[in-house]
Amino acid sequence: MELKNNSVVADDTLPMQKERYRNFPMVPRVVFGKGCFDQLGSILMVKRINSEAPFIFLVDDVFEGQALVERIPAICNDQIIFISADEEPKTNQVDALVEKIKTDFQEAPSGIVGIGGGTVMDLSKAVAIMMNNEGSAAKYQGWDLVNKPSVYHVGIPTISGTGAEVSRTTVLLGPEKKLGINSDFTTFDQVVLDPDLTKGVSKDQWFYTGMDCFIHCVESLNGTYLNAFSQSYGEKAFQLCKEVFLDGLSEDDARDKLMMASWHGGMSIAYSQVGVAHAMSYGLSYLLGVKHGIGNCLVFQHLEEFYPEDVILFRIMQEKHGIHLPKGVCANLSDDEFDTMITVAMGMEPLWENALGKEWRKTITPAKLKSIYEKI
Amino acid sequence: MELKNNSVVADDTLPMQKERYRNFPMVPRVVFGKGCFDQLGSILMVKRINSEAPFIFLVDDVFEGQALVERIPAICNDQIIFISADEEPKTNQVDALVEKIKTDFQEAPSGIVGIGGGTVMDLSKAVAIMMNNEGSAAKYQGWDLVNKPSVYHVGIPTISGTGAEVSRTTVLLGPEKKLGINSDFTTFDQVVLDPDLTKGVSKDQWFYTGMDCFIHCVESLNGTYLNAFSQSYGEKAFQLCKEVFLDGLSEDDARDKLMMASWHGGMSIAYSQVGVAHAMSYGLSYLLGVKHGIGNCLVFQHLEEFYPEDVILFRIMQEKHGIHLPKGVCANLSDDEFDTMITVAMGMEPLWENALGKEWRKTITPAKLKSIYEKI
Repeated sequence: MELKNNSVVADDTLPMQKERYRNFPMVPRVVFGKGCFDQLGSILMVKRINSEAPFIFLVDDVFEGQALVERIPAICNDQIIFISADEEPKTNQVDALVEKIKTDFQEAPSGIVGIGGGTVMDLSKAVAIMMNNEGSAAKYQGWDLVNKPSVYHVGIPTISGTGAEVSRTTVLLGPEKKLGINSDFTTFDQVVLDPDLTKGVSKDQWFYTGMDCFIHCVESLNGTYLNAFSQSYGEKAFQLCKEVFLDGLSEDDARDKLMMASWHGGMSIAYSQVGVAHAMSYGLSYLLGVKHGIGNCLVFQHLEEFYPEDVILFRIMQEKHGIHLPKGVCANLSDDEFDTMITVAMGMEPLWENALGKEWRKTITPAKLKSIYEKI
Repeated sequence: MELKNNSVVADDTLPMQKERYRNFPMVPRVVFGKGCFDQLGSILMVKRINSEAPFIFLVDDVFEGQALVERIPAICNDQIIFISADEEPKTNQVDALVEKIKTDFQEAPSGIVGIGGGTVMDLSKAVAIMMNNEGSAAKYQGWDLVNKPSVYHVGIPTISGTGAEVSRTTVLLGPEKKLGINSDFTTFDQVVLDPDLTKGVSKDQWFYTGMDCFIHCVESLNGTYLNAFSQSYGEKAFQLCKEVFLDGLSEDDARDKLMMASWHGGMSIAYSQVGVAHAMSYGLSYLLGVKHGIGNCLVFQHLEEFYPEDVILFRIMQEKHGIHLPKGVCANLSDDEFDTMITVAMGMEPLWENALGKEWRKTITPAKLKSIYEKI
């Protein structure tokens, strides 16, 4: 099988590294607390280059017309742009946003502020990079291809679980591949963690995105790439997920703790790797456009062979919250289509090696993957 | 009682804040791994301003003549200065180091690199600040008094537990007070976490410094100031301490995990506060010059009234590792001396309020504190 115009690469695949251990960039400034969104005005004020240099707010369009928009501290030339998160972010979407900002303003912006979920986080990081780097965003998909520092950029998550608020990548669908812009300039300069912003999330989306964190932790903690740094963050995120989805927390506590789970889960990426669920989920995503959170759930429920205890936990969580995953997703696929998914999934070599060691091909065969996909 | 030339203030007392939640500076870059000290050369290379602008390495003098010094990537004009950690760091020591560097070099340094324990971490942060700020370091003891960014500075801990590698303060003994330079410019620009560097630490020092982290976590987790951000870091640090000091870990694993405990414990400071042990330990430190780590242990062992389960845990750890704390430390003190310690301790109002709530004076009386000090 030939991959036509897209080859999918894991969002957090480790790059070839010159050094033995990655020198990991952390978000240099973070504020946490219910209602801390209202501190955004004073946070941005000191970063305004001048009154002509605007802040550009990229905001998930679910908030259009809602009270949150009134609270955005947009002054002077600032611009609010609403973004649909119906589809995963694309390089040409980034290019169009950069073009629009350069056309609308003579001055370079003071900064980019993303308010939304993983899609808006990733778009904001990419736009901030591309304001200062030439050409299309597609040119920078890969590792450490960005030459010039990005403009100041702020991440404000409104759903918890992706870890995009703290990671050094922004995963984009390009003309040739789905791959992150992995660079030291990708990481946000400031993150605002206000658990109250996640109040309006639908139950299904809350669950799928939370499970993104849970599954990520299961895969990294059971992987062979782990060290004590990532283990400590991963264990904390895993434990917080269990509290949120299994214990009887108040809604307030659950929001607080899931936001911290996402944060620690994102940090655990520093020296870890995902595994079986992500590899197979990329196949689903490639062929059927299934989104990241739900795709991971669709696969993970059938992975008792690899993660026996955690799949049981997952099913208990699912039942507790009355989440019904779609069925028969792969029911009517042709053999060619199965082959496509299997080829994409098996191409994720670092993920398989992390999950099962160097001899992973002894366990993972096309027939084995097909038998799992058929259950979905 | 009048405090003559020193008034002691807790190292992590929360300042008066304009905003409701502190916008916390994190270390923007960190590398973790056994042997990652050897990546220091390439980390510093890209930060060298020019060949005349040296890196200044402040190194704990226990390493003088040891193999570690040979591995320091000092080239060109770089200078290695050995620092005694026998006494806690002082403002006039900072001033003298800054003066020496300014005298020895025409060019401003490319950066300051601290290699050692809490004392060297704190000195390095203070020297980095004072290279770019006028006057004596004493002038900046307090909160957010630093005007100009510090020079680039790197923290490389060689003992685990203080959290100084990640905090936004540097605690200094000045002519008027023992108080931190708390500022956004204090935090290191880079931290190198190499657990192998802690191999040569003596058992007593390992225990006392590890307990600095443990006691810090007990106090913050049982305090009234906590939020979910600091709780998640504090819980992880607490759990790692228990693994290190109670479980039968390999020496390798224990070094890895204690280094991460210190890191997370330091992060938990963001939105938390210490409590009874620290308040009373400051009294000991003020009167008798008892160092921070052992001082906390001396007090904590007698705090079963406030932290019943954790004092039992502490004693089990102490016994398991055969640590014998000094006895009779306060045996021959005069009433005036007791009064001094009690006044210093009771002056730590935010610590008491964190530990016991706004009505803390109903529980904490001079007689109560004297009865505890008498046991030490």
